[in-house]
Amino acid sequence: MAIIRYKNNPIITMKDIKPSREDFEVIGVFNPGVAKFKDEYILLLRVAERPVNNDPSYHRVGYYDEGINSIVIEELKKDKNKLYDPRVVNHADKSYLTSVSHFRAARSKDGYNFTIDDKPTISPTNIYESYGIEDARITEIDGIYYINYSSASCLGITTSLASTNDFISFKREGIIFCPDNKDVAIFPEKIDGKYYALHRPSSSSFGKPEMWIAESPDLMCWGNHRHLAGLMEDSWDSGRIGAGAVPFKTQYGWVEIYHGATADDRYCLGIMLLDLKKPWVVIARSEVPLIKPEASYEKNGFLGNVIFACGAVAEGENIKLYYGAADESVACIDLNLSDVLENIVITQKVT
Amino acid sequence: MAIIRYKNNPIITMKDIKPSREDFEVIGVFNPGVAKFKDEYILLLRVAERPVNNDPSYHRVGYYDEGINSIVIEELKKDKNKLYDPRVVNHADKSYLTSVSHFRAARSKDGYNFTIDDKPTISPTNIYESYGIEDARITEIDGIYYINYSSASCLGITTSLASTNDFISFKREGIIFCPDNKDVAIFPEKIDGKYYALHRPSSSSFGKPEMWIAESPDLMCWGNHRHLAGLMEDSWDSGRIGAGAVPFKTQYGWVEIYHGATADDRYCLGIMLLDLKKPWVVIARSEVPLIKPEASYEKNGFLGNVIFACGAVAEGENIKLYYGAADESVACIDLNLSDVLENIVITQKVT
Repeated sequence: MAIIRYKNNPIITMKDIKPSREDFEVIGVFNPGVAKFKDEYILLLRVAERPVNNDPSYHRVGYYDEGINSIVIEELKKDKNKLYDPRVVNHADKSYLTSVSHFRAARSKDGYNFTIDDKPTISPTNIYESYGIEDARITEIDGIYYINYSSASCLGITTSLASTNDFISFKREGIIFCPDNKDVAIFPEKIDGKYYALHRPSSSSFGKPEMWIAESPDLMCWGNHRHLAGLMEDSWDSGRIGAGAVPFKTQYGWVEIYHGATADDRYCLGIMLLDLKKPWVVIARSEVPLIKPEASYEKNGFLGNVIFACGAVAEGENIKLYYGAADESVACIDLNLSDVLENIVITQKVT
Repeated sequence: MAIIRYKNNPIITMKDIKPSREDFEVIGVFNPGVAKFKDEYILLLRVAERPVNNDPSYHRVGYYDEGINSIVIEELKKDKNKLYDPRVVNHADKSYLTSVSHFRAARSKDGYNFTIDDKPTISPTNIYESYGIEDARITEIDGIYYINYSSASCLGITTSLASTNDFISFKREGIIFCPDNKDVAIFPEKIDGKYYALHRPSSSSFGKPEMWIAESPDLMCWGNHRHLAGLMEDSWDSGRIGAGAVPFKTQYGWVEIYHGATADDRYCLGIMLLDLKKPWVVIARSEVPLIKPEASYEKNGFLGNVIFACGAVAEGENIKLYYGAADESVACIDLNLSDVLENIVITQKVT
């Protein structure tokens, strides 16, 4: 199949985003959560910002301080002899992110041309979110839109839940997956009386960054964890995998657009087909990426060679997929379900 | 307060344990889960075994193989130039534990003299348990005894749940905390309609090995995770902390006997007092250890300077505490509640 990128990609870049405060600059807008709300496409954009810094001998890092309920800026003298990761500053005994992220809503009638909120739509507001909130996934269940996202802080990376029915006011529900866990995607309906979610726990012992599935009676408490899918040796998804878009239902099974990366951090997207009634059973999985970094805005950017999706709108045969490109901008691809299913190989009979 | 160890400590040593098979040797019996069942004290002992090895140029490791539903033995050529951790063998791309653990029930009328099952009472039986099952905690709720334990495998360290009402047959309930998570202790009753558990997630990013608390409607699914207690700088519990015994209720609050270790792995026990109605609020906490390694069987052994508790029987003012000593044997201390509470300092007013 041919992947035809939307002609005006990227559809949103950092130039389109007003910083949340005058002394901040936007360094990326990417990894949007996606919903169809009434007749509009809604994106919850991850906006990464950092304090403007005119002195290269210092790091200037911003983080949310619960004591004063605001983002504060800290200045840290750089060590000339040290190489720094573009994402993390390790200083003395503490780690900081080089940017702090919040969510900005973008709305569109046609799915390509978006009007973006001038101000943050959801901002860090508790200690678990002090390093920022990242990578929203939106699941509609019975008219309520549940938003799960990574909340980063010195306590680790947790997955938090919020909900809304209007995308104007949002209710924080609490932490649904404890550290470290990210790339959570909640299925849009109960299966045999239970909610299900894909998740990607972190193991500092023997485990690898692989996909698990959990069940829940109430969307808040999750258990009966099962390992769903592992890394594929010598493949495009040999380094780490995690849920991408919220799964959507087809007659063939649940379609999960997931991300896979190699050890050298090339992030591609592939497909998993999960059994409709037993979503912990993988029926089929991409042997080759569905989408790999090829366009210049995917190959070059804050983190080049990265394609990372958090959501898609699936309507009949049409799938409108949104993704972060190079941790810097937002792009869109219109896919056809039959084309997508061509990409996968039946790995296991439905039992 | 004076800590008086039981005069015949350690009460159980590896000499008391029959290996589960002829080609295995027991290298430790420690960290017992504890329950009072009818008129008996019951311990679920962690029995660590390894294949007998007569060739020091090889590692011989045992692990559960789901395909053949049995423990298998693998021989791995040692690298002469490599230093090996006594607990873990890293070979090629894979990690193995040097021992594989199962649970053995021990029963006693007086709490000191135990009759120990000849054969494993609970053994590894699924892929999540392939490296063994460790450190049981037993919580009685309405006549059912819930046993949570660490299940180790190449997928990581998870916490699994089993249940019994007779300590003869056991039902596996599934995984309640995903990788990596251990040191889980479930409260023995609902608080304001919810179950609660202490847990110790692992963070490979910014978090430290600290104690969290979660809630559940059904003991299987857990959420609304909150950070409960952190490390104390320059203290006995500056390296890692985690739940020890199952919390027990007193008029002053829930008493949690927890473990704290320094960076150089000296494990001591201390006390946390948690608010009766809001168990996520720490009222008081040990500034100095309640019990530190002092006896020879605590200072010397498979891992010297380790005291590690998974359970206690609290009846009125009397607390019978069982603990693993030096990852090798089981010891007992009779404590008095007033003495224990002397050890703690009020850190926070109840709100």
